[in-house]
Amino acid sequence: MEQRKPVCLVIGAGSGIGGHVGKRFAAAGYHTVLCRRSDEEGLARLVAEIEENGGSASRQILNAAQDNTIEDLVAQTERDIGPIDVAVFNLGAQIGDRPLEETPYKTFELGWRLAVFALFRLGSALTPHMVDRGHGTILVTSATAAVRGNAGQHSHAGAMGGRRMLCQSLNAEFAPKGIHIAHILVDGPVESPDTLGKLLLGDDGYRKLLEEKGQGKDELIIPSELADTYFHIAQQHRSAWTHEIDLRPFTVLPWWNH
Amino acid sequence: MEQRKPVCLVIGAGSGIGGHVGKRFAAAGYHTVLCRRSDEEGLARLVAEIEENGGSASRQILNAAQDNTIEDLVAQTERDIGPIDVAVFNLGAQIGDRPLEETPYKTFELGWRLAVFALFRLGSALTPHMVDRGHGTILVTSATAAVRGNAGQHSHAGAMGGRRMLCQSLNAEFAPKGIHIAHILVDGPVESPDTLGKLLLGDDGYRKLLEEKGQGKDELIIPSELADTYFHIAQQHRSAWTHEIDLRPFTVLPWWNH
Amino acid sequence: MEQRKPVCLVIGAGSGIGGHVGKRFAAAGYHTVLCRRSDEEGLARLVAEIEENGGSASRQILNAAQDNTIEDLVAQTERDIGPIDVAVFNLGAQIGDRPLEETPYKTFELGWRLAVFALFRLGSALTPHMVDRGHGTILVTSATAAVRGNAGQHSHAGAMGGRRMLCQSLNAEFAPKGIHIAHILVDGPVESPDTLGKLLLGDDGYRKLLEEKGQGKDELIIPSELADTYFHIAQQHRSAWTHEIDLRPFTVLPWWNH
Amino acid sequence: MEQRKPVCLVIGAGSGIGGHVGKRFAAAGYHTVLCRRSDEEGLARLVAEIEENGGSASRQILNAAQDNTIEDLVAQTERDIGPIDVAVFNLGAQIGDRPLEETPYKTFELGWRLAVFALFRLGSALTPHMVDRGHGTILVTSATAAVRGNAGQHSHAGAMGGRRMLCQSLNAEFAPKGIHIAHILVDGPVESPDTLGKLLLGDDGYRKLLEEKGQGKDELIIPSELADTYFHIAQQHRSAWTHEIDLRPFTVLPWWNH
Repeated sequence: MEQRKPVCLVIGAGSGIGGHVGKRFAAAGYHTVLCRRSDEEGLARLVAEIEENGGSASRQILNAAQDNTIEDLVAQTERDIGPIDVAVFNLGAQIGDRPLEETPYKTFELGWRLAVFALFRLGSALTPHMVDRGHGTILVTSATAAVRGNAGQHSHAGAMGGRRMLCQSLNAEFAPKGIHIAHILVDGPVESPDTLGKLLLGDDGYRKLLEEKGQGKDELIIPSELADTYFHIAQQHRSAWTHEIDLRPFTVLPWWNH
Repeated sequence: MEQRKPVCLVIGAGSGIGGHVGKRFAAAGYHTVLCRRSDEEGLARLVAEIEENGGSASRQILNAAQDNTIEDLVAQTERDIGPIDVAVFNLGAQIGDRPLEETPYKTFELGWRLAVFALFRLGSALTPHMVDRGHGTILVTSATAAVRGNAGQHSHAGAMGGRRMLCQSLNAEFAPKGIHIAHILVDGPVESPDTLGKLLLGDDGYRKLLEEKGQGKDELIIPSELADTYFHIAQQHRSAWTHEIDLRPFTVLPWWNH
Repeated sequence: MEQRKPVCLVIGAGSGIGGHVGKRFAAAGYHTVLCRRSDEEGLARLVAEIEENGGSASRQILNAAQDNTIEDLVAQTERDIGPIDVAVFNLGAQIGDRPLEETPYKTFELGWRLAVFALFRLGSALTPHMVDRGHGTILVTSATAAVRGNAGQHSHAGAMGGRRMLCQSLNAEFAPKGIHIAHILVDGPVESPDTLGKLLLGDDGYRKLLEEKGQGKDELIIPSELADTYFHIAQQHRSAWTHEIDLRPFTVLPWWNH
Repeated sequence: MEQRKPVCLVIGAGSGIGGHVGKRFAAAGYHTVLCRRSDEEGLARLVAEIEENGGSASRQILNAAQDNTIEDLVAQTERDIGPIDVAVFNLGAQIGDRPLEETPYKTFELGWRLAVFALFRLGSALTPHMVDRGHGTILVTSATAAVRGNAGQHSHAGAMGGRRMLCQSLNAEFAPKGIHIAHILVDGPVESPDTLGKLLLGDDGYRKLLEEKGQGKDELIIPSELADTYFHIAQQHRSAWTHEIDLRPFTVLPWWNH
């Protein structure tokens, strides 16, 4: 009889951090449940790639901003696939730099819905299961905007600052119950065709950046390398858990430097 | 011909910080516009007290969580009363300590609406006026939960963390345009019949606390004393502006100590 | 019979912050004891200026890095002049930006002697008097380097980081005994012929900077304006004490921004 | 011809973190150079244990507070053993909680000599070698006292605060040159017979603590587990380096919580 694999749920599994973290856990023997809002085809390719490498994965298109989506995802995964051992919360809320007067109310609210409220909903849905089992891990991708506001970052920082304080609050309640919450401060640009490419720079800008700073030069975060740290944190012994960690390429100034 | 008084707008003018800050600015010659969600009678008494002391004030019941309320308030004040020189944003979002499973979605969302979104709306409505004039001050009351999450503080910290980062973002965009944004970290219990009294401790608990630590012992923040620091910050010369300041009673351990 | 004036002791009373803070307290009725390492003539002029304005001051050349100097100063002042009500610790340890290999051991050690050890010595000598009286204030000037290290700041940041943590430790022990400790984070360039002028930029560079950003433009901290905030903090009621506050000119980006 | 092993130098290799980190790197194929101030016998046992497990190690008694000791150690290791790939700076400066008046000047100075100056000396001696090679790693053990001062922590916090800022300054200069500097915030009690046992609690107190919270209960940091994170950080790809990370047992409240 086959033993059930531990389950790793990734919310926000695009071509950058989320997808690579999913692959990393799959390579280590987890069944990964990969969710993203769009690009069903890309998601299918990701699952296929994992399976070709001998891993196990499933996929789901998920609009995390909508009611009940995260709640249903957690319930279905627990019921149909298995106990969620690790959840990776990787929803971004970056919209680029915009002056206040070009930041519509709806945009600001959506930033909060994705960055803070969706995590609160995940925590509400998932922690009861993990508390029952006495263990579990929630890895939360975060950004520089969680530790300092900046010009044009009203929406992003106003959301990520809440995310960070929510992570500390979740940690205070649930760490003593065996649930490891980590706030992972990604403090540098990530090689990600979806986010950095389509969303922030456009295809041309992204290609140029890749040439200048990309693989080989290592001045952009390579998500498959970053994924090793996500995996390490999830494996830490409960006598030595990390709650907050920062990461950036060697040539990128930390957020506190000019 | 009488010279128009500078205007100080206080959003969240109850019996604690907001009301006393209003009185402090009125005593210094500002016309204060005092707003709170309920207790029209208490608000009227506050205006009367200011007027008896030779000051000038007006009042408005305001449900800041509702659409257009803050926006209309700013527009009407600018049009009917005068240019807003100082705005004091003093809406709290404290709900006491509650475990995650006793924190309803609506509560969590309301926390954000009051603590973050309402400030974003105030900023959006008010900064264009202040930028036109090349000066202005926005004083934002904040709380320990803005700098560290804690058990039971999912809603409060998840909101206040966003408030702090939003303040830093507002500061980054608007300080160079002459608008002074200050994030005032009130890191201790305040003598306030409304908040500490009715909301958190109940009347009996509050009376007991007052006896143990109140006036004379000075182990609760006396809001009229705190108001002096609000006033000082609003008077700082633009060559030496404070963005963040903490305050607590002398016997209260700072948030970073046990 | 004349009532004795309260005493304000300023360690590091040059042409910038220290001197102006001394003048501010003298203007408010304190007898100020002004100390600096050199320029006896400049110090005499400062005392004369205070006296011409109706204030009271005395002066002492003090090499704070030498054994017993601070200890003797405190003992003599307490004995011969009066109880020290406020001490302003304003010794800098800035040496400009230097790569590690150009930072000699002696320089690094001197940075610590002035920035940290001298404050520890002041605290050791002064707090017993203040504890006996049940009150007192120690205002510590600090710098950006206290909250973030930076390229070339090995000595300065390695020292100021210790200063900040020492201030928090002093506060934890002595605030409940009635001694107000404040860590004042001066996060911008100060108009100070001594420090910014002679030490860091040279006379020509300083003159040019003054023309570009100086008085009128208010893009350098004007120390007489900054002094108002020092004075305000020293007057705060013990129910609402500030431990940490930052200040900078309106156009200077805070340390956490780029 | 045998390939030379990479070298890991551990300064402060006692029975807790330092010794276990040394064993972890040795197990992964590093030659470890283990240094501590005293207990030559214990150090010899540590080397023997490593060798019995097929690893390679050497040892040196080192009084890091004395002139030239660290400098000579670096020079000799580079010359006689091999290029130092990883240095682990693990000197503590904890003296327990002591009120200011029971903190002698010598104690305060020694705290700085070990916590800050010794690291500055290590950096000065080692970074030129690493810069020449274009890579290297310096892992610095740090403590809660690096991020917040506390009652009785004048010496410890006054030193560790400087250590943290020095680490950030080293990082700012040397990360772009390929040298990975990590500040590892150990924010909880460590199972270490030397430090927690002999130094802080005494043998009986330590035994009792072990029974209450030790192995099996995992409420003290198990240094062999912690060592995995040190090792992971040293293996991070340069596109995703960590500068600061915190760790504590699952039931220990983080420093920012009560």
